[in-house]
Amino acid sequence: MKLAILGSGFISRFYADSLVAQRRKDIITMVYSRTSANAKKFAEDYNVPDFTDSLKKCVEHKDVDAVIIGLSNDMHLEAVLACAAAGKHVLCTKPLGRNAKEAIQMLQAVDKAGIVGGYLEDLCYTPKFLKSLASIKSGAIGEVIWTKSRETHPGPHSDWFWDKEKSGGGAIIDLGCHCVEISRNFIGKNIKPIEVMCWADTRVHPIDAEDNAVGLVKYENGAIGQFEVSWTFRGGMDLRDEVMGTEGTIWANNFLRTGFEMFTTGKGENYVAEKAETNKGWLFPVGDEVHELGYSHMFTDMFDSIDNNKQPAETFYDGYIVNTILDAAYLSAKTKNWEPVKIEDWRGVAEKKVVKQMVSYDENYYMIKEEVLPNGEKKFIIKNKKTGSIERR
Amino acid sequence: MKLAILGSGFISRFYADSLVAQRRKDIITMVYSRTSANAKKFAEDYNVPDFTDSLKKCVEHKDVDAVIIGLSNDMHLEAVLACAAAGKHVLCTKPLGRNAKEAIQMLQAVDKAGIVGGYLEDLCYTPKFLKSLASIKSGAIGEVIWTKSRETHPGPHSDWFWDKEKSGGGAIIDLGCHCVEISRNFIGKNIKPIEVMCWADTRVHPIDAEDNAVGLVKYENGAIGQFEVSWTFRGGMDLRDEVMGTEGTIWANNFLRTGFEMFTTGKGENYVAEKAETNKGWLFPVGDEVHELGYSHMFTDMFDSIDNNKQPAETFYDGYIVNTILDAAYLSAKTKNWEPVKIEDWRGVAEKKVVKQMVSYDENYYMIKEEVLPNGEKKFIIKNKKTGSIERR
Amino acid sequence: MKLAILGSGFISRFYADSLVAQRRKDIITMVYSRTSANAKKFAEDYNVPDFTDSLKKCVEHKDVDAVIIGLSNDMHLEAVLACAAAGKHVLCTKPLGRNAKEAIQMLQAVDKAGIVGGYLEDLCYTPKFLKSLASIKSGAIGEVIWTKSRETHPGPHSDWFWDKEKSGGGAIIDLGCHCVEISRNFIGKNIKPIEVMCWADTRVHPIDAEDNAVGLVKYENGAIGQFEVSWTFRGGMDLRDEVMGTEGTIWANNFLRTGFEMFTTGKGENYVAEKAETNKGWLFPVGDEVHELGYSHMFTDMFDSIDNNKQPAETFYDGYIVNTILDAAYLSAKTKNWEPVKIEDWRGVAEKKVVKQMVSYDENYYMIKEEVLPNGEKKFIIKNKKTGSIERR
Amino acid sequence: MKLAILGSGFISRFYADSLVAQRRKDIITMVYSRTSANAKKFAEDYNVPDFTDSLKKCVEHKDVDAVIIGLSNDMHLEAVLACAAAGKHVLCTKPLGRNAKEAIQMLQAVDKAGIVGGYLEDLCYTPKFLKSLASIKSGAIGEVIWTKSRETHPGPHSDWFWDKEKSGGGAIIDLGCHCVEISRNFIGKNIKPIEVMCWADTRVHPIDAEDNAVGLVKYENGAIGQFEVSWTFRGGMDLRDEVMGTEGTIWANNFLRTGFEMFTTGKGENYVAEKAETNKGWLFPVGDEVHELGYSHMFTDMFDSIDNNKQPAETFYDGYIVNTILDAAYLSAKTKNWEPVKIEDWRGVAEKKVVKQMVSYDENYYMIKEEVLPNGEKKFIIKNKKTGSIERR
Repeated sequence: MKLAILGSGFISRFYADSLVAQRRKDIITMVYSRTSANAKKFAEDYNVPDFTDSLKKCVEHKDVDAVIIGLSNDMHLEAVLACAAAGKHVLCTKPLGRNAKEAIQMLQAVDKAGIVGGYLEDLCYTPKFLKSLASIKSGAIGEVIWTKSRETHPGPHSDWFWDKEKSGGGAIIDLGCHCVEISRNFIGKNIKPIEVMCWADTRVHPIDAEDNAVGLVKYENGAIGQFEVSWTFRGGMDLRDEVMGTEGTIWANNFLRTGFEMFTTGKGENYVAEKAETNKGWLFPVGDEVHELGYSHMFTDMFDSIDNNKQPAETFYDGYIVNTILDAAYLSAKTKNWEPVKIEDWRGVAEKKVVKQMVSYDENYYMIKEEVLPNGEKKFIIKNKKTGSIERR
Repeated sequence: MKLAILGSGFISRFYADSLVAQRRKDIITMVYSRTSANAKKFAEDYNVPDFTDSLKKCVEHKDVDAVIIGLSNDMHLEAVLACAAAGKHVLCTKPLGRNAKEAIQMLQAVDKAGIVGGYLEDLCYTPKFLKSLASIKSGAIGEVIWTKSRETHPGPHSDWFWDKEKSGGGAIIDLGCHCVEISRNFIGKNIKPIEVMCWADTRVHPIDAEDNAVGLVKYENGAIGQFEVSWTFRGGMDLRDEVMGTEGTIWANNFLRTGFEMFTTGKGENYVAEKAETNKGWLFPVGDEVHELGYSHMFTDMFDSIDNNKQPAETFYDGYIVNTILDAAYLSAKTKNWEPVKIEDWRGVAEKKVVKQMVSYDENYYMIKEEVLPNGEKKFIIKNKKTGSIERR
Repeated sequence: MKLAILGSGFISRFYADSLVAQRRKDIITMVYSRTSANAKKFAEDYNVPDFTDSLKKCVEHKDVDAVIIGLSNDMHLEAVLACAAAGKHVLCTKPLGRNAKEAIQMLQAVDKAGIVGGYLEDLCYTPKFLKSLASIKSGAIGEVIWTKSRETHPGPHSDWFWDKEKSGGGAIIDLGCHCVEISRNFIGKNIKPIEVMCWADTRVHPIDAEDNAVGLVKYENGAIGQFEVSWTFRGGMDLRDEVMGTEGTIWANNFLRTGFEMFTTGKGENYVAEKAETNKGWLFPVGDEVHELGYSHMFTDMFDSIDNNKQPAETFYDGYIVNTILDAAYLSAKTKNWEPVKIEDWRGVAEKKVVKQMVSYDENYYMIKEEVLPNGEKKFIIKNKKTGSIERR
Repeated sequence: MKLAILGSGFISRFYADSLVAQRRKDIITMVYSRTSANAKKFAEDYNVPDFTDSLKKCVEHKDVDAVIIGLSNDMHLEAVLACAAAGKHVLCTKPLGRNAKEAIQMLQAVDKAGIVGGYLEDLCYTPKFLKSLASIKSGAIGEVIWTKSRETHPGPHSDWFWDKEKSGGGAIIDLGCHCVEISRNFIGKNIKPIEVMCWADTRVHPIDAEDNAVGLVKYENGAIGQFEVSWTFRGGMDLRDEVMGTEGTIWANNFLRTGFEMFTTGKGENYVAEKAETNKGWLFPVGDEVHELGYSHMFTDMFDSIDNNKQPAETFYDGYIVNTILDAAYLSAKTKNWEPVKIEDWRGVAEKKVVKQMVSYDENYYMIKEEVLPNGEKKFIIKNKKTGSIERR
């Protein structure tokens, strides 16, 4: 597949690193940047045959089958509309829009153009995520009742991300978009998100946007998807997910603790890992960043989907849903109320009731808990179905 | 010191295990249980010279200097009043009351009687907690802006704990009391808790009380104390604390991952750890449970304080503040609003304003972020003090 | 590149899993198995256009640029000679030979034929290994003085591996080959291995070959490469490397502890990870096995090297050196002496003396140790250059 | 119990820290140091009523029931003989002697005097060790076939320890004594150690003694006890034990990874942990050092044993056996041969044959391995009892 990349900054370079690795058959034929010199430098670094400072020219080029958007958030809509106009498949970095209003325009544009709109949510493609999701779907942890997803680090690399107008917000829009979509996958994409409670504050940086936030997203089946984000965390980049089910638990650490530990007195200092804060003392590098952050499997799914004329696992529709949840989070942080998630075009299950299955101890009692005592005996804590009294057997 | 224990169940036995270990000079002289046979059994097991089924007789006994309450939550008030009447120092298990209304009566009773009212909050005495607190006070992680404390397991051992009337609630009152006091210590006990937002639900067990909850406690200085509790967690007992400061981070795992790992095919099955779910496969025991759960340092502080006529680190006043926060949490879970923490008798700092210190890049710019690029160059993201525009240097 | 695979068993399937992932441009055109039905099944499973039970036909096929050997150890030599005769590049699984005598014939055959002989030592291509090696080469941990590499699990999948005649030995030849080459890389491939001390025993399985062994390989510069192998380990597959240098330490866990933890009560049982022993309780899956075990980077290096007419990082020469070390290990286990490593064709540094740099405290004293005391003072332990007396300052 | 401490240096202070904690009933009544000022300072710091620079006076004092030796290794024999002469119970720090010749004199002296000779091997009293040992004895991991014990750090605090004459050697005598006794406990103290193979080298420090060593101790039942020691390790103090049994595995990390992690930019620098190398970046403190290093349980066992007129878990006899093993290790490092362990007075099992139990598949075949394939089928690898041929079912 022939690919154009829009943007030459941090995320575009990460994408390119992933695309040139491991002898992939897909090739980058074109790169666009507003600044011609940047486009040129990128083309040289990644051996891209052509570059341009015209977005339109880039998108319309005949040697481009699909376009990868790695631009600042305020330029996503314009870029997607250009791809739709040119009839080129488009893969857009996260978040899709600065808000749901932008996102739905992008969604409608690709739907109308009949092209694939892939949502580049890499953290829903990390090897640990993919295996977690498969385990959950196989029933290994029962019904998911509570998920947590956390992304915290000392703040983004790109200057535009600190500017609320360009990025659409702060840590919530930057990091919360990952967390929300991770939880949504674990809980089930067919389950409707209903309402959001969010705390957000600007505690450290001299900016208008929030640099810390915690949110709870409530789903129609009673499940809770919790997100925790920060631009003030010290110690590196903390990417952790936890899932609690009725039959099991999943803990995934994607970055700071992956079984790779190094101590150095500081000789031979050099780049260790994305967002590491130091090159001395105990360090926790990641083996193959682009792979472990999900880029490999993400692009494979995107291109395979385009080749096979089907939708990838993460689409513009998912990006839109994420934006509706984040909109509710921002509103909640301001009103201090639980705010409803406003979805114009719900494509999941119509209504999913909360079902709680009570286990019986016998015909008169529910089972609350069964325990094996240190001496080997079994103990039962039970509840009378009629009187509600709690007893021990 | 001569000690009476009220209660002969799970927690009283844990306390006694701690008190008879390591050649302590303090001795248990008396045990009370409503059921005489239970008191007798306890006395035999721990070599206690006397036992009784009369609370009054126990408390008033001449060979009792201090009383340890290990009774169900609904009996704390009565027991404390009896100790106050007898002029005996009293150490009460957590939570202090089922609610603030009970707690303040206990607080007033010990204050009036001039006795020590020690709050047996063991998790504020674990070795990791004590060292964390010392580090925070020494300034090692700067200003604390966000704490998380988590306690989850498959549900309590004692039947009365599942009965809302006797315990005062569910996972929040049982486990949240730990989490709230842990966070309060890290943030600073002098800082006033202002308001609470809490989600709670009963997802798995056939009970009236909540079996899962997440809460956010907001303090006057802007810090957030987050708690996570569950009676439906699978995999053992998960006790983790995290503290995020402006200059550092603390992660403490008190139970499931303490550097001790065992795999067994299941031969030689026996008791491994509190609330472990299995005796096969990979297990994560704790070396010395009573020590690592804080009982050793807790009783040492309590008895040293009584000996030296001073207050221990955890007092009835702390227990009362915790109850006021939990009351607000229960109310918030019902109203879905942030609810104010109602404290009748605030003894901390009168008013603590939120202070945010902006770091300057130069006289015209604030510093947002300083980064070292892979090539060794420094990059600065800065903000114009007047225009607010964000730039890169 | 067009590839033939010789063999249709466990390792060949692992290779194929890696080769068909992530849209690689290289394709498997041919598969050989002694048993035609197995070849056919493999071809169907991996969408390979052709299969055969004739090794010669397979190797000589016009649509084959390079041959991957996934056969039992006793068939490597014959297969390599066939590839050399056909002038096809050949990539052989580990160990290269059952002993150095076989290995050197393979080495000489590819040298003479002028083809690439790639040694498929996947564990020298894991992401953690590659980053470790880069760190060491950048000087981050100073001079390497001691390495440890460990591979233990409950025993191999294939029946032939338990047969000493077919495999060439037991856990040493199966797993030690990995460990030895890992250590050799960390210490430096140019440094000559001198002698080996090895303990080996058959403790559990009813076999002739060893199922447990520990060995020490001494290098000319004084460094020690330690290996630990077992076919009787309980708990899964333990793959750990440690490197101790004068300025730092590296710990890499490639399998059982990679930041991915799952607890399940056992519902939804299914395949979790290579050599896992159970599907219940706490499990430690690996995200993307073929990637984390090094297959992705290994094949990328092999094919890039062939394309660019250069040698890959792991060659038949390396495989031969490993066999000479393992031969010495087997001999040592029998004689109980340190046995010399007999290398016919040493291509590294001619002679590497042990150099020890003494740090001076001042002109009369060497520095032994410098410490900061709890009170902040510095303490020096020093040694008189003339008298040798040890003193404290 | 009334205690005298001989010595006022690093280890004596660690002992005293442990003895004054947690309201123990035992009291230090006396401290001896060669340098009177040091004895005085110690007495002040730990509130000890009396001090002296006369060893004899200290030992013979009427208010001394038991003596704790915290002196340099070269003074152990003299001090023990003084205690024996005075008829005072004596607890001696590790190693017991600089060699077996010294150790057996100490053993004989306490035996003759009829006093308790307690061997202060703290690492055989850590909470993790005690629980591990109990698990092994309960059969949880089957028969122990291989143990590993590792202690490495950047070198000792005391200057005399670097002087071979005073200490008796280097890292082997300092750290190996711990490792050997840990392994001996896991394998079984009744099992006779037979022979030792050891590599040792002086790689970094300007000293005569070894600063790195690895040893293998072979026991009569076929078990191997492996030790790894270093005075050149970078990153703190690494204390890890591993036990491999036929039915399970134990991994214990006593220091550097105990579930307590802290990141700090370096504000508020202060003492973090024994032998930590830095106060910045990621740090791994231990909660309660004296407890987790085993001092609490060690002294409890020692004093309880004296009170109850029985032998503690670690006695001078154990110290003597350790010295015989270390003597063999030192000899082996020199001769490069497996050297026999020479025990004058073996008190364990007379002869313990190696027993290997073969599991049968059926009457004609032994079972080598049973596996569950991904598709759920069972696969058996078996061996013909007569022909020895290996087959698959």
